[in-house]
Amino acid sequence: MNFEAFILGTGGMMPLPGRNLTSVLLRKEGELFLFDCGEGTQISLKQLNLKWKKINSIFISHMHADHVTGLPGMLMLSSQVDREDPLTIYGPGNIKEYIEANRRILDMYINYDIKVEVVDSPGTILETDSYEVKAFNLYHTKPCFGYSFTEKARPGVFFPEKADLLKIPRGPLWAKLQSGNSIELGDGTVIQPNQVLGDKRSGRKFSFVTDTLYSDSIAENVKNSDLLVCEGMFEEALAASAKEKRHLTAKQAGNIAVQAGGIRKMGLIHYSPRYMDRELKILLSEAKEVFTETVLCRDRDCFDISHVD
Amino acid sequence: MNFEAFILGTGGMMPLPGRNLTSVLLRKEGELFLFDCGEGTQISLKQLNLKWKKINSIFISHMHADHVTGLPGMLMLSSQVDREDPLTIYGPGNIKEYIEANRRILDMYINYDIKVEVVDSPGTILETDSYEVKAFNLYHTKPCFGYSFTEKARPGVFFPEKADLLKIPRGPLWAKLQSGNSIELGDGTVIQPNQVLGDKRSGRKFSFVTDTLYSDSIAENVKNSDLLVCEGMFEEALAASAKEKRHLTAKQAGNIAVQAGGIRKMGLIHYSPRYMDRELKILLSEAKEVFTETVLCRDRDCFDISHVD
Repeated sequence: MNFEAFILGTGGMMPLPGRNLTSVLLRKEGELFLFDCGEGTQISLKQLNLKWKKINSIFISHMHADHVTGLPGMLMLSSQVDREDPLTIYGPGNIKEYIEANRRILDMYINYDIKVEVVDSPGTILETDSYEVKAFNLYHTKPCFGYSFTEKARPGVFFPEKADLLKIPRGPLWAKLQSGNSIELGDGTVIQPNQVLGDKRSGRKFSFVTDTLYSDSIAENVKNSDLLVCEGMFEEALAASAKEKRHLTAKQAGNIAVQAGGIRKMGLIHYSPRYMDRELKILLSEAKEVFTETVLCRDRDCFDISHVD
Repeated sequence: MNFEAFILGTGGMMPLPGRNLTSVLLRKEGELFLFDCGEGTQISLKQLNLKWKKINSIFISHMHADHVTGLPGMLMLSSQVDREDPLTIYGPGNIKEYIEANRRILDMYINYDIKVEVVDSPGTILETDSYEVKAFNLYHTKPCFGYSFTEKARPGVFFPEKADLLKIPRGPLWAKLQSGNSIELGDGTVIQPNQVLGDKRSGRKFSFVTDTLYSDSIAENVKNSDLLVCEGMFEEALAASAKEKRHLTAKQAGNIAVQAGGIRKMGLIHYSPRYMDRELKILLSEAKEVFTETVLCRDRDCFDISHVD
C-alpha cells in the first residue's frame, strides 16, 4: 500500500541549475500522478529513474509558464513507451488551448489519447474506488487551484493469528477477507472480515498548494493532510511584495498548516530564485516558528506518506 | 576579437540528465547569438555562468519541440534584466504563431520588443558592418534551415614597431590606424593603415547544421567554416533508419565536412538518446574515418574559434 511523493522540483519563477521548477509526482501503489509541469520536469523525472510509464493524470495549478512549459516534452516522452491508457490533464483557464496550440504548431508525435479536463470551479475532479481528487480555489494573478488527493478508507490490518485460530486455510480466502469481504468455509461457517481485521483505516491525504495569497479557505481544504506541499516563496520581510505578487510567505504557509489542523507534515516548495540553497533555512525557520512539523522540500526528495510521522 | 561557441546541449529528441537538447551560443566580442532552444536551454546557459543579457538574436532550425520549447523560458529570462534592444527570433514555418500563441496563452511578462523574422528561403537574413548570417536549406520532415555566421574581413595585424618608427604617438591615432583608417600627424604627414598593418585577415566562420538528410548543397554552404557544428545522430549501421527519419549519420557529417573543403574543425552534435555518453565514441570514430578533425561536442564545451586550429 505504498503512497509516496517525489519532489521533481522546488523552484518558483525560473529553473536554476540544481533547482527545477515546482513539480511533485505522487505514486500510489504503482499509479503515478503529476502536479504541475514546468520546463525541465521530464529531466528531473528521469534522474529519479522511476518507472514513469504510468502517469495517467496531470494536475496543473495555473497557466503560468513556470508551471506548464514542461508539458509538451512530457507528452512526447510518454509517446516513447507503449501505452493504452489515455492521459488526462486537469487544469484551469486556457489549458485546453495551450495543449492544442502546441500539439498543432509543433506537430507533436503522440501515440495515445490526451484528454483535457478544464477545472473551472472547486470540487471533486477525479474519483475512483480507492481515491478522490478535489480542486479548491487559490488566489493568484490568474485562475489557480490547489489539489487534495485523498485515499478512501481502507480495510483494517489483517491478523494472521486470528485467521489461523478460525482454521481459515491460507490462500485466496485470506485475500478476500483482507479486502473486506466475508467468506464461507467448507463446513458452511461464514466468517466476517471484522473477525480477522482491525478497525478500518482512514485514507491518507496529500495536498498541493501553489501559487496564492493567504486565505482561510485553503486551510479548510488541506486539513488532515498527511503531507501538505505548500508554497513558501518569500521570507516575512518581503510579505508586502509577496502579497503584491500574490504569493505566500513561508510563515503564511505555516499559518495555513496550523489553522487547518491534522497536518502531519508540511513541505515548503516554490522558492524564489533570490534565495540560494543555503539561504532557504530562513524560510524554514520562519515556517517552523508557527508549525514545527515543517521541512524544506529539495529536488528529488521522496516522502513516504505511509509513514510520514 | 573573441569569437567563441558554447555548447549548451548536445542531445536530440529529448533532454537527458547531463545531456541537454541541442543548442549553441555564439559569442563575438560580447555579442551573443543563440542557435536552437529546446527545453532546458536556459538551465545550461545559467550553468555556464556567462553574462547572458545580450542575446539579441536567436536562430531556430525548425519547429520541432526539441528545438524550440525552451523559447518561452528564455524569453521570460530575458525579462529579468533591464534591456533596451529588441530580441529577434529567426526561424521557419509557424514560428511566429508559436511565439504569439505561447505569449498570449501564458500571459508572459516580457519587458522588451520581440521581433520574429520568418525564414522561408535561403539567403542572408542578418547583416551588419562586421558579420553576415545566412540561412540555407536543410532536408527534414518539416521546413528546416542551417545557418552560417561569417565575420567580414578584418584589418590586418597592427605592428607597434612600425608605428614607433613612423613616430606616431601612442593613443587614439594608433586605434584609428588599427581599425583601418588613415591619419594625419602634426607635421601634415599622412599615414595609411597599410604602413602599420599586416594583410587584411579573412573573417571567421561558424556553421550550424541539424536536422537533415545528407545533401550536396549543405557542403557548399558550410565550406571554409572554422567551426562546423553538425548533427551526427546515428551510427552507420542505422543509416536506413536515419534516412527514414531524415537525420544524418556521423559518417555523413564527416562526408559533408570533407566535401565542403576548408573546414578546420567539426563538432558532432544532436546525438540520439539511444547512445549513452560512453557509446558516443562510435559516432566519433565513424566520422573521423572520413574527416579527421572531428570532435564530439559535450554539454558546456567551449570552442575558441579564434584558435580553432
